[in-house]
Amino acid sequence: MIQLLTSDFEKLEKQKRTNLINCLSGLRAANLIGTINNTRKSNLAIFNSVNHIGANPPLMGFIQRPASVERHTYENIKSTRCFTINHVNENIYKQAHQTAARFGENVSEFEKTGLNEFYSNIIKAPYVTESLVKIGLTFEEEVLIKSNNTILVIGRVVELIINEDFLTEEYLLDLSKTKSIAVQGLETYYKAEKIAKLPYAKPDLNILT
Amino acid sequence: MIQLLTSDFEKLEKQKRTNLINCLSGLRAANLIGTINNTRKSNLAIFNSVNHIGANPPLMGFIQRPASVERHTYENIKSTRCFTINHVNENIYKQAHQTAARFGENVSEFEKTGLNEFYSNIIKAPYVTESLVKIGLTFEEEVLIKSNNTILVIGRVVELIINEDFLTEEYLLDLSKTKSIAVQGLETYYKAEKIAKLPYAKPDLNILT
Repeated sequence: MIQLLTSDFEKLEKQKRTNLINCLSGLRAANLIGTINNTRKSNLAIFNSVNHIGANPPLMGFIQRPASVERHTYENIKSTRCFTINHVNENIYKQAHQTAARFGENVSEFEKTGLNEFYSNIIKAPYVTESLVKIGLTFEEEVLIKSNNTILVIGRVVELIINEDFLTEEYLLDLSKTKSIAVQGLETYYKAEKIAKLPYAKPDLNILT
Repeated sequence: MIQLLTSDFEKLEKQKRTNLINCLSGLRAANLIGTINNTRKSNLAIFNSVNHIGANPPLMGFIQRPASVERHTYENIKSTRCFTINHVNENIYKQAHQTAARFGENVSEFEKTGLNEFYSNIIKAPYVTESLVKIGLTFEEEVLIKSNNTILVIGRVVELIINEDFLTEEYLLDLSKTKSIAVQGLETYYKAEKIAKLPYAKPDLNILT
């Protein structure tokens, strides 16, 4: 066993420290966030920080890093008040990963990666045609995290487009059908293999035996 | 394909809506958060909302639901200013799940689930002996999410206890060794199977062929 302390993190070269700290939270869902600006230029970016915020109202959030160079996703959400979250699946993870490249100001990642735009009649932002779980959100709130000047951007789910047979009787998404995948750190992709569905935890229910 | 809208979510019975919305963000890492109160009573709770906040400084966060009945984790963190995050692995996911049961005021989930406490010389909060990735944090910041009165609790990583051979040359955690698992919604557990590690995304690097 090794014990790494603050002084050890600080001694690590930058890339190794970034890798290590990025891995600590474990597996993270890979999602593509689709937006559009006021001149109808679309944008698509992969995020590994999409999280559930609450079920009622239905809220989801993601972490936007500090303004450094470009952050079209954030600017587009602020101006159009909407965005889409699209699950990355096994068939499109390479294209999804490639959206992270810096293509420059006037290029849509849709064009560059070959992923296709899909528009519903509910919100302006583009969905990813190839994604099997398409979630449409309106901008709800942004929260500044002072510790490192990142922003938690929160949206309200207003639309969900899926195949009907992805839903179990209990309204769980069947990941064996959506093929949704996870990412560790920034670059290592994983698919999920179900271990078990456990019952609701109760003090008198002994599931350990 | 089906299109579910706000009015459809509202029509769903509560448990189905909770299930559905909880699934939308995809796979989430399963983590145990360990804390202790000022009378040295330990607490352990499973969370599926642990997220990476930033690498420098090394920050991680989790979502604390609104004060309803008990929230020992939050109260302990506020009074002792520290907590631990412990990856759930394939060998302990049933015990980890069982920490979600409401055992009452004066009971430690360690005792009730058979997981063991481990203390380092750096922070007061207990680690889970059986977890193979033990992360110690000091309380850094809490951010109120007004939309639903949840709190994003943020800690700074001050200690990491792992086996040395879990780290790759690039300082990525090898999940095939840590056996860290993910949860979908609240009750379905998944293990991860590696698909690929992709190179850093660059505009001129064509990884799609």
